Amino acid sequence: MMIWECPKQKQEDTGTWMTTLKNDTFLRALLKQPVEYTPVWLMRQAGRYLSEYNATRARAGDFLSLCKNPGFATEVTLQPLARFPLDAAILFSDILTIPDAMGLGLYFAQGEGPMFERPLRHEKEIHALTVPDPNAELRYVMDAVSEIRKALDNRVPLIGFSGSPFTLACYMVEGRGGTEFREIKTMLYERPELLHHILKINAQAVTAYLNAQIESGAQAVMIFDTWGGSLSQAAYLEFSLAYMQQIVSGLKREHDGVRIPCIVFTKGGGLWLESIAEIGCDAVGLDWTIDIGNARQRVGNKVALQGNLDPSVLFASPEIITAEVGKILESYGKGTGHVFNLGHGISQFTPPEHAAALVEAVHTLSRKYHE
Amino acid sequence: MMIWECPKQKQEDTGTWMTTLKNDTFLRALLKQPVEYTPVWLMRQAGRYLSEYNATRARAGDFLSLCKNPGFATEVTLQPLARFPLDAAILFSDILTIPDAMGLGLYFAQGEGPMFERPLRHEKEIHALTVPDPNAELRYVMDAVSEIRKALDNRVPLIGFSGSPFTLACYMVEGRGGTEFREIKTMLYERPELLHHILKINAQAVTAYLNAQIESGAQAVMIFDTWGGSLSQAAYLEFSLAYMQQIVSGLKREHDGVRIPCIVFTKGGGLWLESIAEIGCDAVGLDWTIDIGNARQRVGNKVALQGNLDPSVLFASPEIITAEVGKILESYGKGTGHVFNLGHGISQFTPPEHAAALVEAVHTLSRKYHE
Repeated sequence: MMIWECPKQKQEDTGTWMTTLKNDTFLRALLKQPVEYTPVWLMRQAGRYLSEYNATRARAGDFLSLCKNPGFATEVTLQPLARFPLDAAILFSDILTIPDAMGLGLYFAQGEGPMFERPLRHEKEIHALTVPDPNAELRYVMDAVSEIRKALDNRVPLIGFSGSPFTLACYMVEGRGGTEFREIKTMLYERPELLHHILKINAQAVTAYLNAQIESGAQAVMIFDTWGGSLSQAAYLEFSLAYMQQIVSGLKREHDGVRIPCIVFTKGGGLWLESIAEIGCDAVGLDWTIDIGNARQRVGNKVALQGNLDPSVLFASPEIITAEVGKILESYGKGTGHVFNLGHGISQFTPPEHAAALVEAVHTLSRKYHE
Repeated sequence: MMIWECPKQKQEDTGTWMTTLKNDTFLRALLKQPVEYTPVWLMRQAGRYLSEYNATRARAGDFLSLCKNPGFATEVTLQPLARFPLDAAILFSDILTIPDAMGLGLYFAQGEGPMFERPLRHEKEIHALTVPDPNAELRYVMDAVSEIRKALDNRVPLIGFSGSPFTLACYMVEGRGGTEFREIKTMLYERPELLHHILKINAQAVTAYLNAQIESGAQAVMIFDTWGGSLSQAAYLEFSLAYMQQIVSGLKREHDGVRIPCIVFTKGGGLWLESIAEIGCDAVGLDWTIDIGNARQRVGNKVALQGNLDPSVLFASPEIITAEVGKILESYGKGTGHVFNLGHGISQFTPPEHAAALVEAVHTLSRKYHE
């Protein structure tokens, strides 16, 4: 088990990457430092909407082989950057690498989301869970991070990421996502101490995993809480947010003298925004259901915000995409602290030229808000 | 097309049902009149978790035959009341009867949700849409309402309902629910005037349909907006809430001298609660993600609230169900204006005795909040 020291956050050190990074707009916006335009990246920007991604995936064989091969992972991570002037790259990987490394057997059935061959079915399996060593069982992720950093050659920063402890637990207990969550919610209400045990292990594992990604070269990290929004407020605070707070407290927030910002994203978490902004993260991800100007009012100066265009807007024409981008920029208003993104991963059915229109609109239309 | 006059709401007339209804607690709570305990009913209370429901359904042949036969619909509507001392009955029907009456061909494929044989695929089909006559194409629903009222013999009030215009449109355009909403969102952003046309027709149809249910004997009505929560705030206000407001304005709010309360429920609508409370409805339904005490603060005295236990709590033991019910009652606090319910339909996997525990807990624990 690897729990790292949490170094004091030194604001005066945050400029160090200037010496190396050609484009640090993303990192500056996350730290609410002045920028010339609003930076943009897209969740799932390396994905099936790109033909070159599908070609690499075909060469790799399947999605998991793509994730587990650092060469392929590097290749697909860089593909969207070759097409669009994005302000950040994100490690190509899956949110479920940790439970896979715990031995649950991640696989992808045709037409289904991720599934586990050996979901947690017995109490003794839960008590037998251990924290994987990120530099052993998850070595392939660290190798990908290093290789991607090298290939990026400091063009833009690299984001590392993990699923949240609760989201991992959903898949670990249910064996799959997108269900009614009958198994995990029965456990949550009937045997909360068992779920807390899983979440404690998961939080330690995610902390070690993200810190190892930072050691390997990740310049920002993001926690994806895909399923926290399925909980009641009380259950969310106790079973999801509390563990993300533990992770944030245990993260290396500085590496080689440079600040490493951290983003927390709970899909469907708009109601709990003030609480999320309190856990010590630098930025909060927003899905598209919340008005970003309203979200900014609610969090004040506490955190930066990342989001939040409805990915479905990208099915419309470039003119409409530009108009919708403009509405979000206008709603956020003047000043730094905004990283433009979608409110959820980009759909596989998105025409790539529509993603190009989005990136261009953000870069062009946002300048006036930073004068 | 039938658009009804909207009579002035006369508060002094609201006591009339006292002369006939044996239990009017539900209606009183919706109108924020004093009650002795918090009334409770369960969304989808007549459903697959009850063996007697499954038996009737088997006799009917399938779900749609059950809906379309007033005798069977009456039978299953009353089944949960025979088991539990619920404070309201709800018409057994489907939210998609209107588009079915428009000729789209509702059907249920094995293991899937509702689907349409002829979803709207061409502009000319959209322009050809007409408002069904609720007393002709939807006569079977009105007959069910009358027959259920008769069978209820004034024990508890009967709730009528419909899907919201946007939710109906989702199914009409996509052909099914639970998708990425690619078709309807493309239309929303690319051809908003087309979607507005569908929604206008749907709003007229829902208004006429609910008014006909009221004429046939429904003593309260509820609009289910299952998919409004998939929209951005701006799109929700324009494409879902505005049309529910039109319906609420066009509803008969009084029948035979008795007030007919109206409930609006947008699943995932917690962020927009203040706006929903403004449209003139008597009560707002809440899913389980929002804290009901917080919701009450936000809406003030404007509306009553209905909800909002996570249906998954019913997978836990009666002791835990009782404790979770207690938390919601405590969060709502003293006074009237609360109808207890789940935050979503009851799961088919719920043990019926757990539903019994919920009802008993609400009735027992709530008395102290109404002293």
